[in-house]
Amino acid sequence: MAVFRKQKFNDLGLDTKTPSDGYRSLNKDGTFNVKKLNVPLFERINFFHSLVSMSWWRFFGIIAGCYILVNLLFASFYMAIGVEHLTGIDGITDFDKFLEAFFFSAQTITTLGYGRVAPIGIPANIVAAVESMLGLLSFALATGLMYGRFSKPSARILYSAHAVIAPYQEINGFMFRVVNPQNTQLLEVEINVTLSMKRENSELRNFYLLELERPKVVFFPSTWTIVHPITEGSPLYRLTENEVLEKDAEFIVMIRAFDESFSQTVYSRSSYMATELKWGEKFIYLIQRDKDGISVDVGRIDETEKAALNP
Amino acid sequence: MAVFRKQKFNDLGLDTKTPSDGYRSLNKDGTFNVKKLNVPLFERINFFHSLVSMSWWRFFGIIAGCYILVNLLFASFYMAIGVEHLTGIDGITDFDKFLEAFFFSAQTITTLGYGRVAPIGIPANIVAAVESMLGLLSFALATGLMYGRFSKPSARILYSAHAVIAPYQEINGFMFRVVNPQNTQLLEVEINVTLSMKRENSELRNFYLLELERPKVVFFPSTWTIVHPITEGSPLYRLTENEVLEKDAEFIVMIRAFDESFSQTVYSRSSYMATELKWGEKFIYLIQRDKDGISVDVGRIDETEKAALNP
Amino acid sequence: MAVFRKQKFNDLGLDTKTPSDGYRSLNKDGTFNVKKLNVPLFERINFFHSLVSMSWWRFFGIIAGCYILVNLLFASFYMAIGVEHLTGIDGITDFDKFLEAFFFSAQTITTLGYGRVAPIGIPANIVAAVESMLGLLSFALATGLMYGRFSKPSARILYSAHAVIAPYQEINGFMFRVVNPQNTQLLEVEINVTLSMKRENSELRNFYLLELERPKVVFFPSTWTIVHPITEGSPLYRLTENEVLEKDAEFIVMIRAFDESFSQTVYSRSSYMATELKWGEKFIYLIQRDKDGISVDVGRIDETEKAALNP
Amino acid sequence: MAVFRKQKFNDLGLDTKTPSDGYRSLNKDGTFNVKKLNVPLFERINFFHSLVSMSWWRFFGIIAGCYILVNLLFASFYMAIGVEHLTGIDGITDFDKFLEAFFFSAQTITTLGYGRVAPIGIPANIVAAVESMLGLLSFALATGLMYGRFSKPSARILYSAHAVIAPYQEINGFMFRVVNPQNTQLLEVEINVTLSMKRENSELRNFYLLELERPKVVFFPSTWTIVHPITEGSPLYRLTENEVLEKDAEFIVMIRAFDESFSQTVYSRSSYMATELKWGEKFIYLIQRDKDGISVDVGRIDETEKAALNP
Repeated sequence: MAVFRKQKFNDLGLDTKTPSDGYRSLNKDGTFNVKKLNVPLFERINFFHSLVSMSWWRFFGIIAGCYILVNLLFASFYMAIGVEHLTGIDGITDFDKFLEAFFFSAQTITTLGYGRVAPIGIPANIVAAVESMLGLLSFALATGLMYGRFSKPSARILYSAHAVIAPYQEINGFMFRVVNPQNTQLLEVEINVTLSMKRENSELRNFYLLELERPKVVFFPSTWTIVHPITEGSPLYRLTENEVLEKDAEFIVMIRAFDESFSQTVYSRSSYMATELKWGEKFIYLIQRDKDGISVDVGRIDETEKAALNP
Repeated sequence: MAVFRKQKFNDLGLDTKTPSDGYRSLNKDGTFNVKKLNVPLFERINFFHSLVSMSWWRFFGIIAGCYILVNLLFASFYMAIGVEHLTGIDGITDFDKFLEAFFFSAQTITTLGYGRVAPIGIPANIVAAVESMLGLLSFALATGLMYGRFSKPSARILYSAHAVIAPYQEINGFMFRVVNPQNTQLLEVEINVTLSMKRENSELRNFYLLELERPKVVFFPSTWTIVHPITEGSPLYRLTENEVLEKDAEFIVMIRAFDESFSQTVYSRSSYMATELKWGEKFIYLIQRDKDGISVDVGRIDETEKAALNP
Repeated sequence: MAVFRKQKFNDLGLDTKTPSDGYRSLNKDGTFNVKKLNVPLFERINFFHSLVSMSWWRFFGIIAGCYILVNLLFASFYMAIGVEHLTGIDGITDFDKFLEAFFFSAQTITTLGYGRVAPIGIPANIVAAVESMLGLLSFALATGLMYGRFSKPSARILYSAHAVIAPYQEINGFMFRVVNPQNTQLLEVEINVTLSMKRENSELRNFYLLELERPKVVFFPSTWTIVHPITEGSPLYRLTENEVLEKDAEFIVMIRAFDESFSQTVYSRSSYMATELKWGEKFIYLIQRDKDGISVDVGRIDETEKAALNP
Repeated sequence: MAVFRKQKFNDLGLDTKTPSDGYRSLNKDGTFNVKKLNVPLFERINFFHSLVSMSWWRFFGIIAGCYILVNLLFASFYMAIGVEHLTGIDGITDFDKFLEAFFFSAQTITTLGYGRVAPIGIPANIVAAVESMLGLLSFALATGLMYGRFSKPSARILYSAHAVIAPYQEINGFMFRVVNPQNTQLLEVEINVTLSMKRENSELRNFYLLELERPKVVFFPSTWTIVHPITEGSPLYRLTENEVLEKDAEFIVMIRAFDESFSQTVYSRSSYMATELKWGEKFIYLIQRDKDGISVDVGRIDETEKAALNP
């Protein structure tokens, strides 16, 4: 009889046939190791995203390049019309004239308009009128992007370099640690940890959503150790360090929070490979108390110490 | 006795009496086939939406048109005041004078202000002061819109051209495929498929929310085949290809996701008509593995191959 | 023994002692009939909201007023410094000089800078340098607000002027109708209807969240009749028209939706008083079908026809 | 046998070992009393947040400072090139020349460009072209930030200075009061109260999420008294005033709402210490009715009156 078995794997949106030899699906910076071929150009390119995400050096380089290019173009227009239609041009050689036209163009596109050099006659005036309008529109776009870059929300969460298998109550737990390094608040923080492991004698992989001690916190002012208790229901139950390495485990982490400084929802992603897992260690305590209150030593986020595992 | 039967149809917000002869309610581009009559003008027009959604050519056309129009208007004002109240006007004919006033207006509205031509006396100065203020405000609006267009979030999801009825485990399933063509992330993607079919011997239609193998994924880095398993509870259960055609089925798809490049929630919609359904075919596998990792051949999203259906 | 009875009233955030003589708590435009006394000034005023919500006439009036005021102020500064520190001032009387200083100020604050009049000497140059900087900042604020006004999301939903008590299946229902007058989409629309009625022999009021036939729709392309079936569990069960009037009923409606044109969540509110309720009428059918598809006659949203109520 | 006890504490994201001698973890202004040490500089600083959150005086101070600094820098460039490359420089001493170069720079960076002073020759023109471009970009950033500050959403909710333990139905309740002081709407308001108390004979603390009479309201037009009924399940059950003081209780409040004036989700936080708790008092009634409708006397939000507690 026809039977439908509802799959119990975590709905992660990743493929179940990812390569199995130490392949990392999610990079530490939150990008995925997937290339896309034959994507229609128009569909692939997201100008806005590119311009907002690139480095500041590159962004300013592009703006400066466009500024020079557009001024060269308009200088050529003024040359073609004839620089005698610009007042105050003193240059004698064509190169000098071109340079003066270039600077006039720069004064026009920024709407600076000193007026020492100014257009006379219809053609030069038309070009100048067009250029100043385009200048206003394109500088506004550039500055909009600049502000967009500046105000782009991002969850700046620090992850411990390693995860650990440490004693937890009377059993053991998979643990890693995150820190909110800023003084701004992250609110209603939700965390989601998926374990991906090779199936036995197969190139296929299973994905498991790990049950966490606390999947959500209301505030995240400083530090948080995320714990997956390795109970009987856990896919890690009774697995040894070697087995986890052989199964090529990858722990994929996603954090969602409301970032109050940007008034927006932000996401953070990271992953731990089996090789980034320390067995029988636990994280040291980061919070210090003195008479003034509490302080958190963020610099020691990665520090662990030996801790005998429960049997 | 009075009885209240809770309707079990999907709450789609569409009418149950839509036309039944091959009528498509939702277009491939996500718009609905509904015209609205007698809407009060003020309620109907959404200037912001129109200006943000129109093509770039049209948008720039409107801006250029307004720029010319407003300058014509202000040139007329300066002519009415008398061009002798502008310094540096050399024109002799009225047409030449009007052109010079026009270019002066352009220099004023963009706040370029070369000053070769400048207002003298109270009336010309008043007009120029008003024009420069309006210029600042209206160019800012234009450039705000330009940035709004540029940064407008949209879920650029590619849909397979056809859906298929393919074998799924020991039964069959209704399937279609979507691809995220960009390198930016779509997170917490939720999908919703509604089937609309004509009732027997009636012009009315029923709407069913189809149960999906996975209604939600956490990540959507590359490709996803959405599957509705045709179990006994499915409205497609035991229907033949001809019956589905006769019932004039339409599968209406809505996808919601968080687009990380825009830090916003985005929606995508599409639909499949009964005539866009291939029976006994399945989608080919898009993911290729090599030593560098995984790649997805997006260009083959539509490719299917024969696959015998389960009885 | 101490007993704690969990209150079953709807959690609406309104008071249970609102006046009972035909008092409307929620106006048709979505504002509440509550005045606030003795609010600290700083807490009460929300400049941003005021400037974004006021009428366009008022907004432009304020901007024009500020523009004139600030120029008057700076003109006074230039007069105090002495107009001999501005080149090109031709005025003889003090009033003429003041006007020229005023127009120079306007040319400076808009960064127009013709240069026919220009500052000479340290004091005039300092004032001009400060004015141009302030001009850039304040015009940017004005134009930011203008764009904020223009792009302000609002759910433009039309409500039928009356609600009806009409037959529904084998019982009766409380119904009203809403229309999306625009061609843009409202998605995942949720509706919430609360009934407020006077208690018997008391000035207190009860609030009931009404159970709806469909509390949520995925799409809202055209029209939607919201139905509350008057079952035995309904607070309207077996009430007559007179009783509903005596109990001074008010139906408070809130709609939430995702507006795709603004990519934001929007809210709409309205209310129906007992006196705006038609008994034994039903809404006429708005959707027309022809060979081109479907059209909705929005102009007839309020039209009803007689319909005998079920006993 | 290994046992896993799921912790029942509220998932607040705070530490269970916070100091216990009257220490306040959450300040009245919503910030936390936690210092962070050794945070990498790059991770700690959030320029956007700092610039958007600082006081207006400081913000304008920074902008004015930058304006002066950048103009000093560019004035030095023009001096280095030689002021003979600027037309209209009248100064004789170097200081006068520097000042004129400074003012020319200000006219260039704001794109004012009177033109009385204008660059001649290639080097001066290059510097001016660069300066005007940088001016456009950086002023746009400044003004973007200004608008960002102006339109920054914040839940301006007023809290009563004290919380009370007052009779509630036949038992008692923990209560405090909040007021929406503005005329704009807060919608779908959710509230969350956590009680933190010292464990007996331990420096550790327990965190309890308090069950509320109404954890959510649809509207919040005026005033709302939040009530935690002290039932048998409450951590406050049968505790005396002295015990609550000894246990160093802190009530941590978080409110989330949709602010319609900003079309955004906003959060508000506050806390009440055991010493800010009045036993046997209840809040006076704020709502007054007259023939015009309802008014709320916000100025009396803190007023309480004696009320005998239930046993």
